[in-house]
Amino acid sequence: MTAELPSMTPERLPPTVAWRGGDEGHLALLDQTRLPHERVVLRIENLDSCIDAIRRLAVRGAPAIGVAAAYGLLLGVRNARPEGRAFLETARECAVRLAAARPTAVNLQWALDRCLQALHETPNLARLRAEADAIFAEDVTSCRRIGEYGRHLVPANGTVLTHCNTGRLATAGDGTALSVLFAAWRMGTRFAVLCDETRPLLQGARLTALELAAEGIPAQVLCDGAAAGIIARGLVKMVIVGADRIARNGDFANKVGTYPVALACAAHRVPFYVAAPRSTFDAQLADGAAIPIEERDASEVLELFGQRMVCPGVGARNPAFDVTPSALVRGFVTDHGLLQPPFGPAIKAMFGVGR
Amino acid sequence: MTAELPSMTPERLPPTVAWRGGDEGHLALLDQTRLPHERVVLRIENLDSCIDAIRRLAVRGAPAIGVAAAYGLLLGVRNARPEGRAFLETARECAVRLAAARPTAVNLQWALDRCLQALHETPNLARLRAEADAIFAEDVTSCRRIGEYGRHLVPANGTVLTHCNTGRLATAGDGTALSVLFAAWRMGTRFAVLCDETRPLLQGARLTALELAAEGIPAQVLCDGAAAGIIARGLVKMVIVGADRIARNGDFANKVGTYPVALACAAHRVPFYVAAPRSTFDAQLADGAAIPIEERDASEVLELFGQRMVCPGVGARNPAFDVTPSALVRGFVTDHGLLQPPFGPAIKAMFGVGR
Repeated sequence: MTAELPSMTPERLPPTVAWRGGDEGHLALLDQTRLPHERVVLRIENLDSCIDAIRRLAVRGAPAIGVAAAYGLLLGVRNARPEGRAFLETARECAVRLAAARPTAVNLQWALDRCLQALHETPNLARLRAEADAIFAEDVTSCRRIGEYGRHLVPANGTVLTHCNTGRLATAGDGTALSVLFAAWRMGTRFAVLCDETRPLLQGARLTALELAAEGIPAQVLCDGAAAGIIARGLVKMVIVGADRIARNGDFANKVGTYPVALACAAHRVPFYVAAPRSTFDAQLADGAAIPIEERDASEVLELFGQRMVCPGVGARNPAFDVTPSALVRGFVTDHGLLQPPFGPAIKAMFGVGR
Repeated sequence: MTAELPSMTPERLPPTVAWRGGDEGHLALLDQTRLPHERVVLRIENLDSCIDAIRRLAVRGAPAIGVAAAYGLLLGVRNARPEGRAFLETARECAVRLAAARPTAVNLQWALDRCLQALHETPNLARLRAEADAIFAEDVTSCRRIGEYGRHLVPANGTVLTHCNTGRLATAGDGTALSVLFAAWRMGTRFAVLCDETRPLLQGARLTALELAAEGIPAQVLCDGAAAGIIARGLVKMVIVGADRIARNGDFANKVGTYPVALACAAHRVPFYVAAPRSTFDAQLADGAAIPIEERDASEVLELFGQRMVCPGVGARNPAFDVTPSALVRGFVTDHGLLQPPFGPAIKAMFGVGR
């Protein structure tokens, strides 16, 4: 199932998500639970393995989950015969199972809906493969565009704070919020980055620090609870984060711990930006109140490296996301441009007036 | 140096801080860095060991540090001869070293100042021992009073959230914020408690959960970043925390991660209380801007259980405290009563009009 690569320093990583071979090929996922210590590429050959990889966060990040799910659907249906109506039915069943793997990031459902729509028109494997490849390629382009639209926002010689991981490890391309920082760095803007460690699974400490170091961008990690005080002391010039689902009014869900950072930015007038492709916008939801919040296993909070930190008889709450109201957002950096308040009309325009 | 006790379930712990024996005795400190897994009582027999224990948080919590420092001073001077002027000079030198062990909690300096004042009047060992014992005894009384003044604030059948540890492990008595919860529970109020895990050193997960479980109070741990979202969802009826230093206007420093919780409470109109004895109020400071914030070693953030979580070449910021402005505080539960806004006059009255 796995190929182990040499252990790591901050240099180029294997691709986050990639299809290898033809229709009988496999999905290659860099196992992010093993980073930064080990580089293990998972060979995903069937639907169950793909669902498992999404559920246990071997692949994570809203855009990357969408891409992985599209290829997961391919794995689920490629042995379904005959092509045609039965093929479409099998795809629908697989999509329901994939969508349930993680409820909050809308990109997962969005990618599956797109594949099913394509199969509805042309119910065969070639069409599905083409759609999955298109989702992959479009994500690469979206990441690049987000970087281009956002790079001028990054203040020179300041410090930018970010939360969780929103880079190459969260997408098929250069990332969302991190794509903005990479693009700014490449055009010569110099700055430093503070990475919230992002408990419980430490995506900031394990993944974002690694990506920034690989790019040569000065980075420091801090505990999530330290961000507000550091913002209050005037040490942060800009915050930029990703998103897992954005409602029509601009309320958005992102990795738990985002909301208190946004509150601190509002209290101290630090610009707070959200970077996300259009696939993260959920045209069905009026506001953030209806975004489903995934509650994950208590063991993620109670244990670290397999060692329990809490006495017997005490459990944990473990919401994986929180919702930040749009009033705290200075702007959305999207693959369709920078959206500024009022967000309702801006988001409506992005989806097209007819929608 | 250490006596190891049987490993642990949530039951009564050895005393947090205690003097054992006469003038030739020793300071016994429960090593809090080993909890909840091991109960190790440190036998502290000289000044350097006491400073080391305070610095590495074997003993922590503003009131407990004050008590430990008073006995640490005793250890530092007990061999100084002759009693009298030289004795006082030695005490002053020891006090400077003790005070530098941790800069933020004012109780440390307060206890040392009190001891030096006593020695100024009567420069001998017996007087110092009496003063240290008095500081210990008064802290026990202060904790009890804080519980009595605050217990009626705890909402029945609701959930209370707290940050860091403010119980028996933080004081010589029943605690500050946790004393309020213990006292409410003992008078029959029923509620549940959410404990912020309190990164980096996990005092909430390791210590507060243990103390609540020992008392039979239902408790759950959550990641620090999750508190704001849980407050936003209406799941918390009250927040109560401790403090390490409170300025004359009511701005206060507490364990890093307190400020974002206070911001969330303000945004969602959840009452936010601070529990602390008078020794935590710093009559010298006009507001929170001048409170010194201890920056601790980056390794506390970068490593867990000796395992590094961050790739090479990336460091960390590690402020141990943050400052919350008084405008976010509903009330201070003190050993001199409940202080309500405007805090300036209330705090002045507590210190006496002449001060």
